[in-house]
Parts: sequence; C-alpha cells; structure tokens
Amino acid sequence: MAKPMDYASAGVDIDLEGSAVASLIASLGRSVRPAGTPGAPVDLPGGFGGLIEFGDSLLALATDGVGSKLQIASLLNQWGGVGIDCMAMNVNDLLCVGAEPIAFVDYVAVPKPDPATHAALGASLAEACRLARVTLAGGETASLPGIVTELDLSGTALGYVKKGEAITGENLQAGDVLIGLPSSGIHSNGYSLVRRIIEHSNFDYTSEAPFDADSLGREILRFVGRENQKITLGEIFLNPTRIYCDPVVDLIHHAQKNNDFSIDDLRAICHVTGGGLSNLLRLHDNLGWHISDPLPVHPEFSWLQEIGGVETREMYRTFNMGIGIIIAVSADKAEAICSWLQEKMAGVEIIGNVLENGHKVTHAIAGVEFTHY
Amino acid sequence: MAKPMDYASAGVDIDLEGSAVASLIASLGRSVRPAGTPGAPVDLPGGFGGLIEFGDSLLALATDGVGSKLQIASLLNQWGGVGIDCMAMNVNDLLCVGAEPIAFVDYVAVPKPDPATHAALGASLAEACRLARVTLAGGETASLPGIVTELDLSGTALGYVKKGEAITGENLQAGDVLIGLPSSGIHSNGYSLVRRIIEHSNFDYTSEAPFDADSLGREILRFVGRENQKITLGEIFLNPTRIYCDPVVDLIHHAQKNNDFSIDDLRAICHVTGGGLSNLLRLHDNLGWHISDPLPVHPEFSWLQEIGGVETREMYRTFNMGIGIIIAVSADKAEAICSWLQEKMAGVEIIGNVLENGHKVTHAIAGVEFTHY
Repeated sequence: MAKPMDYASAGVDIDLEGSAVASLIASLGRSVRPAGTPGAPVDLPGGFGGLIEFGDSLLALATDGVGSKLQIASLLNQWGGVGIDCMAMNVNDLLCVGAEPIAFVDYVAVPKPDPATHAALGASLAEACRLARVTLAGGETASLPGIVTELDLSGTALGYVKKGEAITGENLQAGDVLIGLPSSGIHSNGYSLVRRIIEHSNFDYTSEAPFDADSLGREILRFVGRENQKITLGEIFLNPTRIYCDPVVDLIHHAQKNNDFSIDDLRAICHVTGGGLSNLLRLHDNLGWHISDPLPVHPEFSWLQEIGGVETREMYRTFNMGIGIIIAVSADKAEAICSWLQEKMAGVEIIGNVLENGHKVTHAIAGVEFTHY
Repeated sequence: MAKPMDYASAGVDIDLEGSAVASLIASLGRSVRPAGTPGAPVDLPGGFGGLIEFGDSLLALATDGVGSKLQIASLLNQWGGVGIDCMAMNVNDLLCVGAEPIAFVDYVAVPKPDPATHAALGASLAEACRLARVTLAGGETASLPGIVTELDLSGTALGYVKKGEAITGENLQAGDVLIGLPSSGIHSNGYSLVRRIIEHSNFDYTSEAPFDADSLGREILRFVGRENQKITLGEIFLNPTRIYCDPVVDLIHHAQKNNDFSIDDLRAICHVTGGGLSNLLRLHDNLGWHISDPLPVHPEFSWLQEIGGVETREMYRTFNMGIGIIIAVSADKAEAICSWLQEKMAGVEIIGNVLENGHKVTHAIAGVEFTHY
C-alpha cells in the first residue's frame, strides 16, 4: 500500500515556516508607542488579530493571503471567488477578538497585469465587501515578473471593538459550551494537499464531481456560464471561504445590548484555519476542548480522504472538516445563543464542551486528538 | 547609437497596469457603510491613502510593496534595508493626507521559508517601526512555491487624523510655495530600469561605486561586515527609502498648535514615488507646479543616466531625482516652515511654486514637463 498522503509530504514544511516566523518575531523589539496613546499595542492570547489602542476603542488589524488555492484559480482562469476568500481569511480573524470589520485593502502581485483578470477580481472583492460590510479603502497591484510566476492575492482588514469588550478567552472555564458554524467547503487552507491528491488521481479540476456536492448550510458558487451543467471538482474546490460577519457581528451587537445573553457569555471565538481543530489550543493556555457532536463533514472532504488515502487525524489537522468558526459560550446561555444563531445561519449546532482535562483537543472520533497547534 | 533606455523598455507597461487597475476599480460598487458610521469612505483627491470615518477621527490605510528592488536584495542576500523600504512606501503615503501612522502589518511570500532571511527581515522591520514610530500589529508569511520564485514583501500601514484636519490640497492656490525634503537615494521606484541598466553595463552590484556616493542629507546603510571597505553599487542601490514621519508628523503637530504657522498653511503633501514629479498632478485638478530650484541630484542618478543613456525627462518621470517629499505651503509662512524643517532634516529647501498656468509640472531643466500622472 502506498504511503498515506499528508500535508508535509505535499510540500508544506510547517516546522520550517514556524521557525522562520519565530526568527522574525525574535528580531522585533517593543513598540515605541506608549500605553494610553493611539497605536499602543494590546496583548491578547490567541493572536488571530493584532490589537492597538485608539481612544475608547481598540483597533484590530489582520493580514493574510489566499495561498495556493490561487493556483487552481489560475489554472482554470476563474477569479470570481478568490476576492471573497481573501476577505474571509482576514475578517474572520478579526471576529475572533470580537472586532467589527470596517475596512479592507488588497495587494495583488502579478507577472503581467491583465485587465480581464482584474475586472473579475474587482467584482469578487466588491461582493466580498458587501458580505463583510466593509469599505474597500485602497489596494495595490504590483507587476513583478521576476518574483511571481502567477497571481498572488493578499489583503489587510481593519476592525474595531470598544475597550473592555474584546473577546479574549480569559473568562473561559470548564463546562463552557462550543457552538459550531458550518463552513462552505475547504475554505482557504490545505490546498497543497488538495492539489497533490488531485495530481495523483485520475481526476482533474474540470471533472464532474463523482459525488453529490449538496451539504447542509452551504451553496456552491457556480462558474459563470456553467450554472445549468453538472458541477465540477474545480467549482467545489474554488467555492469561496464563508464570511461570518453576518451573523457574528450581529451576535456581538445583540449581546452588547444585554438582552437574553450578554457579551460576557461570549467567551472565545475560533477561526478554524490551517491546523484545523488544533486552532482551539490558541485560545487558552491550559483548558481542553472536546468535540462530541461535530457538524456534518462536506462530501469533498470524505472523497479527498478516500482517494488520497489520508489518515483521519491528518484530515482534521489540515482541513476545517465542516466547521468554520467555533464560539465558546457560557453553559447556561448556550441554548439561547445557539437558537439565535440558527435563525441567521442554517446548520449551526452545539458541538462540544470546554474541559479541565489538560491542554488538548479531543473529538468524537477516537484518535483525532491534538496537544499542540 | 543605441536606443536610449526607458522605463517601458525595461519591461514595465504602465498603461497595461493602469488599465488593469481601472478594470478592478470599475467593478467595485459603493461602500455599504453609511456616512457618519465607522468605516464610511471619505473621498479625497490624490488618493495616496484611503480614508474612512471613525468617530471624531479619520483613519487612513495605505498598502504597498517593495517591488523589484527586492530582486537586488535576493541576489545579494541582503535584507537589512527592505523592511524600511516597505514601511516607508506606506507611511509616506499616509503623511500625504496629514495622517499620523500608528501601526503596520507585513506580508511576506516566499518559495520556501528561511529562518536567517526572516531574522534579517525582522530586524529591518523593527528598525522601520522605530523610525516610523508605529506598532507592528501583525504579519503573515506564506510559503507559495508555485506562485513566487523569490521573496515578495508588502505591507499595510494604518494612520489617523482628526476630522477637519486632513491635508487635502483643496486650499491650494497659485503662489503657494513648494518645500522639498531630500530623498536618501533611489527609494523603491524605478528598479526595473536600474536593473536593466546594470545588466547592460560592465558593472554588477558587487562593483565598487565608480563615483563618490556622498550626497547632502543622506547616509548609505552599509552591509554588515563591509563598513570599512569601499562602498559598492549594491549598497547604494539597496539604500533604504527615507521614512519622513520625523519630521512631517512633528511639523503637523506643531502646526496644530497654531504657533508661527497653522495647519491651514500646510496645503498639500506629495510623496514622490513611481511617476516622479508627475505625482504632483494628483494633488489638484487644474493648478500647475514649477520646480525652479531642485534639490541636488544624488550621484547614482547622474551615473545611471550616463551609462544607461536615459533621456533627462525619462529620469524625472521614473525616479525621485533627490526629492522624496514635496510640501506645498502658504507663501507668507514658507520661510518659517522651511526653517522649522531645516532644523530637523539637513538639505530641506524651497524648490518652487504653485502656478495658474494649466495642469502641468515644469522644471528648471527645459523639457522636464509633465501633463499627466
């Protein structure tokens, strides 16, 4: 039997990446901006978004790119979803500190500018701004034929939260309840593995999907002109990352009004990105997390696992496996918060609990267990 | 005689780039954020930084990368200056709307992460944060072996200005005086042409400079270990872009206190980037600009022009030619403002005037004239 495929063998050296980032961070000093002045840094656990002081508010910045999902977009010349991916990767990180996203800037590097590609990117970014409810406050297109061989897209999102209302995870406690918000598919992580599996299969991105793509709580963005034809693997794999501003921003606003639940009941928010469920470990230094009732796994995950021969634990540390955002809430308000969310988004469910059993993630599936991010 | 070198023949198709960006912008709609709420867009001429509302303040975002200057850094494996370049390209744009930069995030795309390179980048970004007086609020390193062949570095800066105190150019008038702040060298624009000239010359980046690199108001950042050796072309061409937060932020703060001059006397600020002096045309729809007394041209510009056979007008629309920032001020306070700046930065001088002679830039050198950006 062939060696099972995994993320590392697909060409991503997570340790080397971590070591490079650690080297960069080690070279940085303290900020020159003193506490209490605009721009002074605010330290929060988790590190999904960087926070700074600004009067009565905290401002949050998040920067991220679409990554190697872009290589599938380039191959198929389909740019309708990647602006949404780029927005989602950033604004979803801002939501994790309780910040409301308000503005975005994009950075595009290309070997050679192409007006048709840029028009499609612009339309995708416009839709992304609508979904995330932000202003596109600028952008840059760089022609770098000696540096990039195909289009790279990244961006930066700006958000804000009132001082004292940031969601930090510091009030997390054993017994808190986890609510899962469904993903729309693979989102923007794990594409080195996706691409490797497809390369080693008898399929390509124009193949009709050999499975039923229907899945609760998501729709697939169809390529223009293909709406009435059978769905392809390319359309499924390029389905844009879900933007959770609606309903999470509204949830936060509702909680701030102290009705049936308050902002203190929202203990922590986790964006399930690269690293899968192990992202939960970023939210607290010693509590544990158990996923007893995971959301349904979208069919493309099961199919990729099968044809790639990927081990189950590897699937869960590479992909979101159906859960895009996890919100930890106080146990006595969990039903109320979950019901509120279910009215805004199909497929939201209570999926597990916070435990005092060591700093680890466990799962209904035995063996899906993580002790480091 | 060989055809003179110019920016377009060096592989940069400015029209195609403009057309691609125009296509992207045409696809965007109005922001969903209503006027008077956080994140609502604020339209300003010039477009150096994107402004949004935020309570009593305006927030400004600028995003830009280092561009093909990075290819020289890659070739020489010298990363000590490029973090400063990246910071400068962004914060100098924020200064143009009168915004004080407060935070920055970086985005690095690499074919493969390298801890030594990242440590050098981190040190460069740390120094950049100190010079620009901002907090590094986050960053992202992406491994994209299928998209980038060498390191790409970009970033986003956040700044703020009180409502009503943005510097917009709307009060510009004929007779206003132009003050020039010296550049530190080539900064981060025009490197496709620099690289092409060197490729077609008998020199390379390790060659000792065949000219005296001394120039008023700048120092060359020496490569580590080479401090006592003769200066090379690589060190001159990688000299980092000057960050103008000191003195421009201090100038704005001083003006806000309404002492010898006020914020109304600061009419417009121009960052001389790609497009050279033609950037002035972005500040007003119909006034003209005359540079009667340009600052000294750094020796590398004269040398590049000579060995590349570049026409003079082409030099001035590709490079900053010694002037990094131009501040337009009211005529009756020009001497006071210039004196104030001279105490903070060597080489600052009055360089020209605003004219009512049509929307064009003219220069002491006949033929250096621009009618579009």
